[in-house]
Amino acid sequence: MTYQEIRLEFEHYIEKEIFDTSSYPLYYAINYIMASGAKRFRPTLLMMSYHIFRDDIKRTLPAAFAIELFHNFTLIHDDIMDNAFIRRGKPAVHEKFGLNQAILSGDAMMMIAYQYLMRSSSKENIASVMETMTKMAIEVCEGQDLDMVFEKKNVVEVSEYLKMIELKTSVLLAASLKIGGLLAGAKDTDVHHLYEFGRNIGIAFQIQDDILDTFGNSQNVGKRIGGDIYQKKKTYLFTKALEILSPEIRNHLLSYYTSDKELIENDVSEVKSIFKNNLVLEEARIEQERYYGIAMDHLSAIEASEDRKSPLKKVSRMLFERKF
Amino acid sequence: MTYQEIRLEFEHYIEKEIFDTSSYPLYYAINYIMASGAKRFRPTLLMMSYHIFRDDIKRTLPAAFAIELFHNFTLIHDDIMDNAFIRRGKPAVHEKFGLNQAILSGDAMMMIAYQYLMRSSSKENIASVMETMTKMAIEVCEGQDLDMVFEKKNVVEVSEYLKMIELKTSVLLAASLKIGGLLAGAKDTDVHHLYEFGRNIGIAFQIQDDILDTFGNSQNVGKRIGGDIYQKKKTYLFTKALEILSPEIRNHLLSYYTSDKELIENDVSEVKSIFKNNLVLEEARIEQERYYGIAMDHLSAIEASEDRKSPLKKVSRMLFERKF
Repeated sequence: MTYQEIRLEFEHYIEKEIFDTSSYPLYYAINYIMASGAKRFRPTLLMMSYHIFRDDIKRTLPAAFAIELFHNFTLIHDDIMDNAFIRRGKPAVHEKFGLNQAILSGDAMMMIAYQYLMRSSSKENIASVMETMTKMAIEVCEGQDLDMVFEKKNVVEVSEYLKMIELKTSVLLAASLKIGGLLAGAKDTDVHHLYEFGRNIGIAFQIQDDILDTFGNSQNVGKRIGGDIYQKKKTYLFTKALEILSPEIRNHLLSYYTSDKELIENDVSEVKSIFKNNLVLEEARIEQERYYGIAMDHLSAIEASEDRKSPLKKVSRMLFERKF
Repeated sequence: MTYQEIRLEFEHYIEKEIFDTSSYPLYYAINYIMASGAKRFRPTLLMMSYHIFRDDIKRTLPAAFAIELFHNFTLIHDDIMDNAFIRRGKPAVHEKFGLNQAILSGDAMMMIAYQYLMRSSSKENIASVMETMTKMAIEVCEGQDLDMVFEKKNVVEVSEYLKMIELKTSVLLAASLKIGGLLAGAKDTDVHHLYEFGRNIGIAFQIQDDILDTFGNSQNVGKRIGGDIYQKKKTYLFTKALEILSPEIRNHLLSYYTSDKELIENDVSEVKSIFKNNLVLEEARIEQERYYGIAMDHLSAIEASEDRKSPLKKVSRMLFERKF
């Protein structure tokens, strides 16, 4: 089955999972965010991972829904913490329903995620599935914590940045794929390769995201180019620049990021030039390809036919060509 | 083993469970709230429940810690939602560490609770333990949701109020006792009785709390008497009053609760008189005793020696005499 076919299965399922709002208003917020046009990327990956080994993917639908619930719970709470008022072109949950409902609905989603996850589990895999989910969930909190720490720091090392995006972004992809494997009863080495495939593809994807935010074209990327620089975000490009630039240019770059002044278009162009003319962009592309390569090696190492693995290979390629 | 002995075991354990704060600041907030002088009532109940059936209570320490983590997670998030700045005589977490750390540390605690819970579980009981925890956790969110709904309503029925305190307070006691039973491998009927014992004792306890807040003496209760009335909280006394008062007195009572004016000492005395002179207080005491009686019946129905059950019986009595 292709990515699109599996995603469609999930969409059919999620359409019916509407929570009853008659007793508790918190379910309005949950239905609201779960209905908003998301890519359903993570649940689809979970199901694709299962499909490498087994055909009866319907069994995984509750677990896939759990992953989507968890992901959306983190978005609700992150949007509060990041003071973000728009999510997927609509008001963020705390903007629409208020802070209290945003906190509470997020809390409930986290727990409902466990409930759905259990529905897909069996006596054989429940312990490993629960452990994978829980370890991942704690790491995502730690990643968000690091992200907030970085906001207050002037200098962030590349290794620190990579750790942050691993925790905040990659482990959720990795855990989704791993849970797919666990539910299918895949053997330990294959489960390990699925996890590492997800972890590395997630890091590669985030580095690419950083590159596109600064050097993409707004039509493909779907947001204002240079947004990260305007916001003075510590991205891969920024941390790599600090590592490889000469002291003079490094200080010049830092002057933009540490000043209290808002950046204007000229400043952003100047920062882009610094990234472009000093091998920073090139290094980022090399690093992105390197993580992508490691991910593909892990996918190849899984003991299954090429046929079964090709949908995941295709979707990884698509990711990097931004074709969906 | 007595309540005090088991509680001491738990205190020894919790003293050593300090989270490493070197990488992620969110653990400061967790250590802060977990160290603050709490009664450790819920984890101790879990261990006492296990001890009805088995001696090796050390096995339950991680699960007991999970319950205490969960309880404190709800306090952190509730204090944000309720705009409460003091908790156990110290600044609330959001007051001390800021809103973002309060949201995030609460989220993490919820998940770490699952991690600890799994440490006490075995292949035989993990599914039922996880289901009990998760169902309870969702219900606690629903209870908090109802509590916030009530703030905006003028009239709340007794049955609605009882549902709210069942969800917000009682199910956590009930689940703690049930998990103790599940970990001990108790049979289904005994597990059911443990749950119902906890659920009913929790409701009785909350009604008593409402009575003491209005009619206790501040030395025993440890807070200002009449606080609920000053805050115009919909308590058991208030909802029962609306049910049984004559229309005239009912409207008089409602006038205090629906006016925008802050209540003064005279108003509070008047509300107290209404409760006292119209059988409201008496009805509340009858209802409290009724729930207490049901709880005791469930405790008696558990198939174990009186010897094994007497510590739970004693602690229930102590609760109602406020001797700890």
